[in-house]
Amino acid sequence: MPRKKEIEEKLNVVNAETGDIIRIVRNNEQHEGVLMPHHEFSDDDIITIKLKTGYNIGIAVDKKTEIILIQKQHTTEKPIKKIPFDQKKPTISIIGTGGTIACYVDYRTGAVHPASSEELAFSVPEIFNLCNVKSQVAYQMLSENIEVSHWQTLAERITQELNSGAAGVVIPHGTDTLGYTAAALSFLLKNLSGPVVLVGAQRSSDRPSSDAAQNLIAAASVAATSDIGEVVVVMHGEISDTFSTIHRGTKVRKFHTSRRDAFQTINDIPLGKVENNTITLRAPYRKKTKGPVTTDILMEEDAAILYFYPGMKPEDIPKKKGIVLAGTGLGHVSTKLLSRIRTLIKDGTAIVMTSQCLFGRTNMRVYSSGRDLIKAGVLCGEDMLPETAYVKLMWVLAHAKTKKEVESLMMTNIAGEIAERTKNNTFIRPYY
Amino acid sequence: MPRKKEIEEKLNVVNAETGDIIRIVRNNEQHEGVLMPHHEFSDDDIITIKLKTGYNIGIAVDKKTEIILIQKQHTTEKPIKKIPFDQKKPTISIIGTGGTIACYVDYRTGAVHPASSEELAFSVPEIFNLCNVKSQVAYQMLSENIEVSHWQTLAERITQELNSGAAGVVIPHGTDTLGYTAAALSFLLKNLSGPVVLVGAQRSSDRPSSDAAQNLIAAASVAATSDIGEVVVVMHGEISDTFSTIHRGTKVRKFHTSRRDAFQTINDIPLGKVENNTITLRAPYRKKTKGPVTTDILMEEDAAILYFYPGMKPEDIPKKKGIVLAGTGLGHVSTKLLSRIRTLIKDGTAIVMTSQCLFGRTNMRVYSSGRDLIKAGVLCGEDMLPETAYVKLMWVLAHAKTKKEVESLMMTNIAGEIAERTKNNTFIRPYY
Repeated sequence: MPRKKEIEEKLNVVNAETGDIIRIVRNNEQHEGVLMPHHEFSDDDIITIKLKTGYNIGIAVDKKTEIILIQKQHTTEKPIKKIPFDQKKPTISIIGTGGTIACYVDYRTGAVHPASSEELAFSVPEIFNLCNVKSQVAYQMLSENIEVSHWQTLAERITQELNSGAAGVVIPHGTDTLGYTAAALSFLLKNLSGPVVLVGAQRSSDRPSSDAAQNLIAAASVAATSDIGEVVVVMHGEISDTFSTIHRGTKVRKFHTSRRDAFQTINDIPLGKVENNTITLRAPYRKKTKGPVTTDILMEEDAAILYFYPGMKPEDIPKKKGIVLAGTGLGHVSTKLLSRIRTLIKDGTAIVMTSQCLFGRTNMRVYSSGRDLIKAGVLCGEDMLPETAYVKLMWVLAHAKTKKEVESLMMTNIAGEIAERTKNNTFIRPYY
Repeated sequence: MPRKKEIEEKLNVVNAETGDIIRIVRNNEQHEGVLMPHHEFSDDDIITIKLKTGYNIGIAVDKKTEIILIQKQHTTEKPIKKIPFDQKKPTISIIGTGGTIACYVDYRTGAVHPASSEELAFSVPEIFNLCNVKSQVAYQMLSENIEVSHWQTLAERITQELNSGAAGVVIPHGTDTLGYTAAALSFLLKNLSGPVVLVGAQRSSDRPSSDAAQNLIAAASVAATSDIGEVVVVMHGEISDTFSTIHRGTKVRKFHTSRRDAFQTINDIPLGKVENNTITLRAPYRKKTKGPVTTDILMEEDAAILYFYPGMKPEDIPKKKGIVLAGTGLGHVSTKLLSRIRTLIKDGTAIVMTSQCLFGRTNMRVYSSGRDLIKAGVLCGEDMLPETAYVKLMWVLAHAKTKKEVESLMMTNIAGEIAERTKNNTFIRPYY
């Protein structure tokens, strides 16, 4: 939200502008630093300053707070930027969607603001050594607010870009639901003529520890030069800036709230990595086609993920067209829920079982409780992540004509979401 | 369920008894092996035989199926067992609850059946070298059917056993909800005078690869000889039989559907390990007291875990006394849910935010969407697992007298569920 009028006035009185050094005095505390632009994610009573340490702090300003101008910024002429074009290089398309990665820092002023895709590219000029850049903004959102309609918009824009000759597409995206979007696009897009690369940042680019630049360069490099015909996620491979990992869109999830290597491939090995601008691909992947890309964006939105817990009651399972259960172990829920599940399935709900273990594969044939679920018509989610099973189910329900087809599509590997065999070397290595 | 009458009769006709070698012929298929006892988890039309490979298979028997007796088992006198008692050794109490670990294999016949706790101990006679054993069965259940009342029963029995002089308690338990039970007991039990050790098996003990024996010995060893005054989980530390890991009950979850090292400590290092009967403790832990153990088993059962997903609608959040949200990233949900959340909190629901990332810590102060949730009254779940936050909330709601007390208890570390600082070395090590 925009800054309060009173606060804007306080700044005007002392002629403090973005980029100037100011001191904020409140009660017995005082802080000095570069005045940063107010960005949409901040509250209306906050002034953000960049400390000498490189970190930004937001300070709540009230009537008693005093603002002192310490030094005007050294004004430098803002050069007029023109996107370079080199016809020998491939052209990628960057489609902005918002998120931390789009909190762009201007190299000269240190100012942070939501960046256009163009600014994003300019913030990492190394990209222009690799490729030409076309850019557009689809929307500017915190990714927890992204919904089905946003996936659909993206699918259409990506199709348009690839069919207009883009070598690949890069989609900067908030990390919170980046995994969901990657999985959704994997089902919405067909016959990809180039890589579709989702990329995010765990630390905004105004922080010294930001992962934005490395992730963007690596993503651009995969989009411009690889022959991948899949939706992938490119993010830090380790906590340090050593390399970025290329994850398959249907097998990746955000697995840590804050680490730079938060994104991890589950139940498979990652497709590859990018290290010093060199792409190494290790796992089998779908190669890009000659096109054209097609998309059929229909999805059934009356669906849910339900996480089972001891004490869950039959009425805790709502009536929906599609439900993904995150059951326990091999794919179980309490026997008390069985009758409700039977009724829902009889009434037309498609129910898919995944495991809250996340790692491994559901197998409902081992114990009687699982076999009862199979008899009731619950579909086995194999080794799919609950999130991937959810977006797949929404897509399948909108495309299958019969119940049988729903079943058969859910159990067919369409976009790498079901590994034929779960590899042994894809689990956490324990710390003892 | 018991075997069908018709099938029992088929076996009687050829005088085939448990332990005999039989051949089952159906259509063009035939299988030969040792006739196993029918266990409660099997369907009523199944005959289970142990193949020469050591694996059991269940064969569905219909009217046309033929059963041929190949060889009667070599009858051996069943020795009358008496639990040995050595007054120099500590005495532990084993309280059975069911699960895969209680699918006990008789060493002589290879027969599998649900075991009493006594049989469990006899199946691993090494335990008697360590300690004396008292045993009882609380219930025999697949753990996905365990509910609050079962936790309460267990808490009372454990209290009784420890206050009657047991050095420690071992609880064999199904693995599906073992983590929930461990967390629940961590809050229900106070002033522990000995270790409370939950233990399970990922493979039943009739399989050559079973982890039951090693896990049981390690659990007994921790219960009998360690000075831990906490609820812990002891399970395989690696896929091979090298060592078992001791996990804190509030920080552990089943993280793989089938691997023997499925249980992992999240957001902390494990308490220690057991290797060749030697216990090494590495992390700080609460020491056992002189007792007496107390328990106050009240829990508020009107509670739920809700997993956020893109497209979740306000009406998908039910009215409950307590809700644990598994939000995205640092602890977010879509802004569209905010108004529903505000209403529920005003009407008395306690809502706690955890992260579906599982690793890391929620922090709702970074983005506006998080700050809005704080303003609405959503409590920060810190680095608690959603499962742990859920059982803790049920316990807190039954014990706090005011809303303020609910808030303060939820944010206070009571049983090791909140680590002061999330350690850097507790994340997955990536495979690239």
